[in-house]
Amino acid sequence: MSGSLPVTERTRLRRRPQRGSHEMDTILRILDAGLLCHVGYVIAGEPFVTPTAYWREGHRLYWHGSAASRMLRALAPGLPVCVTVSHLDGLVLSRTGFTHSVLYRSVVVFGRTAAVADRDGKRRAMDAFLDRLYPGRRQELRPTENAELDAIEVVSIPIEEASAKIRDGGVLDKEEDLGVPCWAGVIPVRATLGASRPDSGILTDPALPAPLAGYRAGASLDEVLLAMASRDAAG
Amino acid sequence: MSGSLPVTERTRLRRRPQRGSHEMDTILRILDAGLLCHVGYVIAGEPFVTPTAYWREGHRLYWHGSAASRMLRALAPGLPVCVTVSHLDGLVLSRTGFTHSVLYRSVVVFGRTAAVADRDGKRRAMDAFLDRLYPGRRQELRPTENAELDAIEVVSIPIEEASAKIRDGGVLDKEEDLGVPCWAGVIPVRATLGASRPDSGILTDPALPAPLAGYRAGASLDEVLLAMASRDAAG
Repeated sequence: MSGSLPVTERTRLRRRPQRGSHEMDTILRILDAGLLCHVGYVIAGEPFVTPTAYWREGHRLYWHGSAASRMLRALAPGLPVCVTVSHLDGLVLSRTGFTHSVLYRSVVVFGRTAAVADRDGKRRAMDAFLDRLYPGRRQELRPTENAELDAIEVVSIPIEEASAKIRDGGVLDKEEDLGVPCWAGVIPVRATLGASRPDSGILTDPALPAPLAGYRAGASLDEVLLAMASRDAAG
Repeated sequence: MSGSLPVTERTRLRRRPQRGSHEMDTILRILDAGLLCHVGYVIAGEPFVTPTAYWREGHRLYWHGSAASRMLRALAPGLPVCVTVSHLDGLVLSRTGFTHSVLYRSVVVFGRTAAVADRDGKRRAMDAFLDRLYPGRRQELRPTENAELDAIEVVSIPIEEASAKIRDGGVLDKEEDLGVPCWAGVIPVRATLGASRPDSGILTDPALPAPLAGYRAGASLDEVLLAMASRDAAG
């Protein structure tokens, strides 16, 4: 998984390149900490950005949706996309208006979509998505029906033309501004899990089953997702 | 602030229209709960999606950045964009693979960017951004310098062609699947604040100042931002 991606005109980091990276490890770690991406595409010259869940297998990103959706109808035949994943990590309150900032990690991937055309491929891909998020769960569910597979599109792009950008740390005020007598510092932000709410009428214990125990109230979603991704890599 | 926006070809909700809305109140409430958007634009026919902080004044969305950034260089002269704001609210674990889902609120706004060209306009806009996030703070900071204003671009789009989509609630399994003996339910997710970390060498109390007390550890970022937006509306 290591190594650095080639830098293209699109992925060259123009602003604050010290915050950027083309290292595959860095890119995958940011992708593996998330599940919601923003897919950008062009229809008749106009930009569209659709939020959707994604997953990764090796060096490909996948997402899916109804075959009737505008996005999937446009993307299934193969279209250039820009997929962006962002994590907001904090607010930076500095001593000048212009040094206020946010902490974040983001990845941008450019590529052309490829559709998973056949039922077996879709079934395998959707199984991988479920296994990525909920280990051990798939075997307990009602099996997927062919009609369900026929009603969706699954598309993917290679993780080949991509870059990461990370703003971490804290306040970055200039020496001459340090005497400004205001509060300054960081307010951290993280996606946090709440207490699970069982559906009415479930036939099991209301507590989450053991393989999903990581999804406990108060846990960081990032960390749960990262832990599951590294389990997959280890297995 | 009330009323419904006209539906265009781009904002017509094709999939699950019952989850969508063109009501201005619904749209603004989702926008006011966030601070990170994804801006989609087209350069030489290719899509780009850039995450950035935004703010709202009335029925316009604003964002800013270095005048040297690829995005701002492209957008300052006026370009069609699609700005998407999404909140992930939970994971839905259902009884079939295909009814697994996520809870979310999202807004998509289409428009053509307009640049804030002059220093006074930029200063006023950046003041509004700071006031939106951090009431009472601006007066304590080192004043903004002209050179700082000259180094940025501020752009905006009208909130006129927009739609919201909300998936809330819980598991939506069909009657015939309710007997599947697996756990089913919702795991809530929310952007949560951590304990603030003062910068080294601040000249004030390490605790957050009173006007920012809402940013307390454990608070929901959404709720803090919404409360401040309604304060603005009331003030």
